[in-house]
Amino acid sequence: MAAGNTFGTLLKITLFGESHGAAVGGVLDGFPAGQRVHHALISEMLKQRAPGGFSHETSRAETDIVEFLSGIENDKTLGSPVAFIIRNMDAHSEDYNDTKNVFRPGHADYTYHRKYGLLPQAGGGRASGRETAARVVAGAFALDFLRSKGIDISSYVSAIGSVKMNGAGKWYDEKAVQSSAVRCPDQAASNQIEILLKEISKKKDSVGGCITTTVSGLPAGLGEPVFGKINAVLSQAVMSIPGAKGVDFGEGFAGIALHGSEYNDVPENKDGKISFLSNHSGGIQAGISNGNLLVMNTAFRPASSIGTPQHSVDFNGNETELTVSGRHDACFVPRAAVVVTAMAAMAIADLWLQFKSYDREL
Amino acid sequence: MAAGNTFGTLLKITLFGESHGAAVGGVLDGFPAGQRVHHALISEMLKQRAPGGFSHETSRAETDIVEFLSGIENDKTLGSPVAFIIRNMDAHSEDYNDTKNVFRPGHADYTYHRKYGLLPQAGGGRASGRETAARVVAGAFALDFLRSKGIDISSYVSAIGSVKMNGAGKWYDEKAVQSSAVRCPDQAASNQIEILLKEISKKKDSVGGCITTTVSGLPAGLGEPVFGKINAVLSQAVMSIPGAKGVDFGEGFAGIALHGSEYNDVPENKDGKISFLSNHSGGIQAGISNGNLLVMNTAFRPASSIGTPQHSVDFNGNETELTVSGRHDACFVPRAAVVVTAMAAMAIADLWLQFKSYDREL
Amino acid sequence: MAAGNTFGTLLKITLFGESHGAAVGGVLDGFPAGQRVHHALISEMLKQRAPGGFSHETSRAETDIVEFLSGIENDKTLGSPVAFIIRNMDAHSEDYNDTKNVFRPGHADYTYHRKYGLLPQAGGGRASGRETAARVVAGAFALDFLRSKGIDISSYVSAIGSVKMNGAGKWYDEKAVQSSAVRCPDQAASNQIEILLKEISKKKDSVGGCITTTVSGLPAGLGEPVFGKINAVLSQAVMSIPGAKGVDFGEGFAGIALHGSEYNDVPENKDGKISFLSNHSGGIQAGISNGNLLVMNTAFRPASSIGTPQHSVDFNGNETELTVSGRHDACFVPRAAVVVTAMAAMAIADLWLQFKSYDREL
Amino acid sequence: MAAGNTFGTLLKITLFGESHGAAVGGVLDGFPAGQRVHHALISEMLKQRAPGGFSHETSRAETDIVEFLSGIENDKTLGSPVAFIIRNMDAHSEDYNDTKNVFRPGHADYTYHRKYGLLPQAGGGRASGRETAARVVAGAFALDFLRSKGIDISSYVSAIGSVKMNGAGKWYDEKAVQSSAVRCPDQAASNQIEILLKEISKKKDSVGGCITTTVSGLPAGLGEPVFGKINAVLSQAVMSIPGAKGVDFGEGFAGIALHGSEYNDVPENKDGKISFLSNHSGGIQAGISNGNLLVMNTAFRPASSIGTPQHSVDFNGNETELTVSGRHDACFVPRAAVVVTAMAAMAIADLWLQFKSYDREL
Repeated sequence: MAAGNTFGTLLKITLFGESHGAAVGGVLDGFPAGQRVHHALISEMLKQRAPGGFSHETSRAETDIVEFLSGIENDKTLGSPVAFIIRNMDAHSEDYNDTKNVFRPGHADYTYHRKYGLLPQAGGGRASGRETAARVVAGAFALDFLRSKGIDISSYVSAIGSVKMNGAGKWYDEKAVQSSAVRCPDQAASNQIEILLKEISKKKDSVGGCITTTVSGLPAGLGEPVFGKINAVLSQAVMSIPGAKGVDFGEGFAGIALHGSEYNDVPENKDGKISFLSNHSGGIQAGISNGNLLVMNTAFRPASSIGTPQHSVDFNGNETELTVSGRHDACFVPRAAVVVTAMAAMAIADLWLQFKSYDREL
Repeated sequence: MAAGNTFGTLLKITLFGESHGAAVGGVLDGFPAGQRVHHALISEMLKQRAPGGFSHETSRAETDIVEFLSGIENDKTLGSPVAFIIRNMDAHSEDYNDTKNVFRPGHADYTYHRKYGLLPQAGGGRASGRETAARVVAGAFALDFLRSKGIDISSYVSAIGSVKMNGAGKWYDEKAVQSSAVRCPDQAASNQIEILLKEISKKKDSVGGCITTTVSGLPAGLGEPVFGKINAVLSQAVMSIPGAKGVDFGEGFAGIALHGSEYNDVPENKDGKISFLSNHSGGIQAGISNGNLLVMNTAFRPASSIGTPQHSVDFNGNETELTVSGRHDACFVPRAAVVVTAMAAMAIADLWLQFKSYDREL
Repeated sequence: MAAGNTFGTLLKITLFGESHGAAVGGVLDGFPAGQRVHHALISEMLKQRAPGGFSHETSRAETDIVEFLSGIENDKTLGSPVAFIIRNMDAHSEDYNDTKNVFRPGHADYTYHRKYGLLPQAGGGRASGRETAARVVAGAFALDFLRSKGIDISSYVSAIGSVKMNGAGKWYDEKAVQSSAVRCPDQAASNQIEILLKEISKKKDSVGGCITTTVSGLPAGLGEPVFGKINAVLSQAVMSIPGAKGVDFGEGFAGIALHGSEYNDVPENKDGKISFLSNHSGGIQAGISNGNLLVMNTAFRPASSIGTPQHSVDFNGNETELTVSGRHDACFVPRAAVVVTAMAAMAIADLWLQFKSYDREL
Repeated sequence: MAAGNTFGTLLKITLFGESHGAAVGGVLDGFPAGQRVHHALISEMLKQRAPGGFSHETSRAETDIVEFLSGIENDKTLGSPVAFIIRNMDAHSEDYNDTKNVFRPGHADYTYHRKYGLLPQAGGGRASGRETAARVVAGAFALDFLRSKGIDISSYVSAIGSVKMNGAGKWYDEKAVQSSAVRCPDQAASNQIEILLKEISKKKDSVGGCITTTVSGLPAGLGEPVFGKINAVLSQAVMSIPGAKGVDFGEGFAGIALHGSEYNDVPENKDGKISFLSNHSGGIQAGISNGNLLVMNTAFRPASSIGTPQHSVDFNGNETELTVSGRHDACFVPRAAVVVTAMAAMAIADLWLQFKSYDREL
């Protein structure tokens, strides 16, 4: 039995918890000692992840209260592992009772059954968006640390369904992102998305979307050759988020159609410092940050849980029709923005510490 | 100083080598004992990776001869690490002499300089496509092993520049792929790509492309929650290949626009076995293989080395114009197909062995 | 900042918790699904670890109640991480108040101060025997799993102070070990040790000891060359226990004086099966189990906390005299036996699962 | 199939090679860039490891010539993996022909057979002292790096057979150690050992021994809680050396008999700096270096290969008598001193780099 619940080399997070068990949580190991815990940031990020921020979202209110068990004294980190839990207050497992024996399409039910030989528990068990709450707590520590080094991360919705924002790939500050109900800093697109989500919600359906993540203040030199490239590590980090189905950097998939003479980011000497005349590479050359804005896009599938009837099969092989009860998100992607930020922060803080181990100055 | 040159948990590859040093090579650890070494497969895969397969490609003939140093006796694996080297026969480092002090746009020159504080060596050093030869050797072992378990992998060009093939995402056998000079199994698209590459080559420019990879025969249950999801591990694997800028699975980025009712792959009971009526998820549910064809796309940027003059800066900060001498690929993407296959094979064989460690039957 | 709180490859334990914080606990990842949780074994092992088993031991009663947070449903493991906590009920941090600013000799106070730049918290923080409670919980899962495979582990006191038992290195069953108040299965030595500990206790001093661990039923073939040798992995496992200062296998340090002709364990064919005429190697040849009884000794230093005054220095560099208040163990070694068993079980279960991943039968 | 041939977190060594294959070698990853390669140190350390230094040792002359394949340019490290090989010049596999089908007592033959299901190759294959040549090369890099930071390591023979040196546990410089033919810096003991080894050699037998290792200049603060304690990591490192059967630190096993009031190393303020009045702990408190001399002892079994007839069993289960032909060491322990130094250097340099990653000053 393999062990896939830990991520990182020097800064490590180990996650645990089922959506309908007692709690989700994590152990953050390798976080520097003597850092003040930024409770407000943790709360704010958890709030962004929580359902209920939108009228068209699930009303299953999650009151995410973080309990710290170790690694902190007088609100400062000790350098020892920071363990934390978030109890599952409002599990509503009865909502799922009638689906207990049926493989819900798009869910982990079938694959976990084949993997573990068990009936997965009601509500999706380990493979639920619920686990992302623990990612967010760890990510808040990492983000706060990065900010103290002059590095910041902004993630926002750049597309939902067929609506795409204008100006994706630029840096938008927290205010610009959070002032949109759907975390899309292009006001026109934001409005269109709101209308779209109401329609989708009415149809008891769901829709996918894209999160664009930008990292500012990144020094040149982060990332490790060959398998530790900053894009390789970030890809693993964000593709591990439930529902993520694609990731790209800079021009990404669009770069397929470009020519080298267009694509290459040409350096110039600007007041004695190297900068680049363009940023097609998304701030990464040969897997190492080049000091430019890092730009990453993460594609998310539409939510699997929908309120319309679907064909399926039960554990005994009987074909059946299933309506997943409970209230569902029309689109979880706006809530996923902060989860992508959290994972990016974990990955980059880890690479920052690895670079710090170099026997030379940054 | 961090160590990023090893990939895998139970099946591990450690790579080494600079493009203009003595050799590239690798150490394959954790490969099962008693397996016959499939030299023909290794040679065939190296040939597919080697430059020179196309008239419009670099004529720098690399004679990739693999020397095995350990782990093999009488052509059978011993279970101990298989170390191998491929000597760099034809380094032509003089081709690069005039560029030695100039940061070549799009290359590792600047980022490695900032990371290591050294002048990178002529020809790109560690961050060169040359290292992929070692990936291919390791991948050939992994692929041969997977085939003995009924699993096969096929990678092909699905787009170059603005030419896209029809029928991408299906399985194409080796013959269908290799019969195209540019490894695109859609004959019409293949022809268009050939014409395009001749044009690009004439302009001394380069162009990007996309590799589609399909994995057949995969049992349901491969992949590890949470950070070891099959898509997360494959993403790290292929995004570590030089030039890779994006990866997605199934509908991938196109899935952003779909609704849950369209996207969910609905199971049916086919002769007592679960199968699915569609494959939008690319054979992966909740990060675990579902027994369907796994479908992955990897986007590659256009080659950085182009024969046209580019603006740049040298190590002393002087602005200059640079023409990268030597012969260059108009497009390395057809050659990258086998590298993606190799990395996918490494990642999947590792997950297969991890699943094997489960104290239950597949 | 490095991350050293995780142990294992396929079966992993991540530990957390300070002795005077809210809780200690752990996350057990990679444990097979579908295993019934053996609560009685967990309780029994925790009881063996808890202070208070001896009249001459600390009266700080620890009521170790394990709360499981994840990975278990209906008392069966799910294959997902098993997270658990043990709250620190009776922390008595006031006992330590007067020592807060003084480096207690033999304690982590000075080294943690130099490492983390912080005043370590009262009572020793992370580097306390308290964390071993979490090791024991994880070890109980591993031991129960091993027993289901016919493998068992017995650890016992083979020496305390200058008292050494007769017959060390043989297998003693649980009853023989637990019937001794000091977990020494040689009745005469057990009595002598009890007398010794009363004397030491009266003097408010402490004394060291040795735990001998035997593993029965081990199949031949466990352990990984080169750095994953069963003795290398077990050495890391047990030398990570607080107070451990030495480990050896079979003849161990005594084997220095032996000749090869005496030492070599000679095989014979016993009813068609290989067995050995002696066991000087402690069941390990070239780092791999040979099917014989595995024999390991772990040496523990005397407890650092003693009730007699000691010279020391405070955080400001002032020389001072210190009496560590509170009640202290004269010898923690009898309680350490179960901790050694727990760590051995974790290490061996991990190697068992690694061997299981081999594409061949055990 | 698990992969145990890599050691380290930030400074990693991956080893490969069978004693009678083409070569042994390694890949050193994570070594800092810009360091001058100290060829003389590598040669000197390889010479100390090579057979033939003593009249009573095997005359199988190994001409260990290191070929570097990557990671070095103009004799300076590039920060990329340093791959190196040492070809097996003088394999003499014919010496072993008659033992091919017989399990040699004390050797890997039986355990590897059970593990891998193969006949191990003539001469011991992977589990041979031959692989330690590669450890020494990597260790020379690590030692040279540590010396540049003011840290040095000295390993010497402190016991062979029943002869024990006086003054073990102190620092002896290179000259004191190398001036003894058997690397024992106590002249009287050295002489006795020479006499002993001649006798043993005459009897075609072998004998065990002990290496004491001291590390000077170690800053306080190295080592990671909980499983990364400096003693836990060093234990894994040295217990992975062929023939190692025990390791202890400071008083080690002798500390069992001590009282806490004797054992605790009491701090004093010496000219504004903390130092300790004793060093029973061997420079380690709670798994972290305390700035005192680190003292470690490693016990080695007598060599398995002896020239006298032994009972054994062949692969078909037939009982037989076996005389291992070829020339054998009466004692490999003097040659093992440099291997212990190499492994200690690797482990400590790795911990040094991990500490360097802390976001604070040493």
